[in-house]
Amino acid sequence: MIDKVDISEKMSLFNEYWSPKIVGELNNSYVKVAKLKGEFIWHSHENEDELFWIVKGTLLIKFRDKDVLLKAGEFLIIPKGVEHLPVAEEEVEVVLIEPKSTLNTGDIISDRTVENPIKI
Amino acid sequence: MIDKVDISEKMSLFNEYWSPKIVGELNNSYVKVAKLKGEFIWHSHENEDELFWIVKGTLLIKFRDKDVLLKAGEFLIIPKGVEHLPVAEEEVEVVLIEPKSTLNTGDIISDRTVENPIKI
Repeated sequence: MIDKVDISEKMSLFNEYWSPKIVGELNNSYVKVAKLKGEFIWHSHENEDELFWIVKGTLLIKFRDKDVLLKAGEFLIIPKGVEHLPVAEEEVEVVLIEPKSTLNTGDIISDRTVENPIKI
Repeated sequence: MIDKVDISEKMSLFNEYWSPKIVGELNNSYVKVAKLKGEFIWHSHENEDELFWIVKGTLLIKFRDKDVLLKAGEFLIIPKGVEHLPVAEEEVEVVLIEPKSTLNTGDIISDRTVENPIKI
């Protein structure tokens, strides 16, 4: 089935934070949507580059040597192996594109880990 | 270098149609931006799934058995091997995500083919 995805519509289907949902797949990667609020945890993805695309709101991504502030209409690609900490002062809506093997908490297993993201 | 990309800013850097520009890379894929207007050519990508994300305007994607009309904030993933024809009645701004090996005209080589997209 080839069907378009309306990102706003997908965002309306859930409210929980830090729990990415799968909305598409291509070339062994997933497209995910997520709502973020508050501070996540420092982590890195050993083998996966990760794209954050801001749909609504503002997201700070901290690195060990700098911070990057992302607004709606901007994206950032975090290369594999690079430690990062997403911080959302207010609610932010993001699209993530990353290999299917990507765990949200990367090299860290914690109560923030989502082992099997659902498709919506 | 880890730097954010402002999609609107990238769109302001060029005016030509049907000439995707590279604005990011991750996991052996490129993120590209393009402006489209008019009708492209029927083609398919033998080995690559392709994501079209509409930033501005409206894009019709024709398939052999149906049409899909995409608006800003919507995306469509075209699976490998599926023939498609993008048609933009008015100018549309899109983001494409596809493997680095992807040729814009897929299995067809024509005067619409862009062999080496530039980075902007």
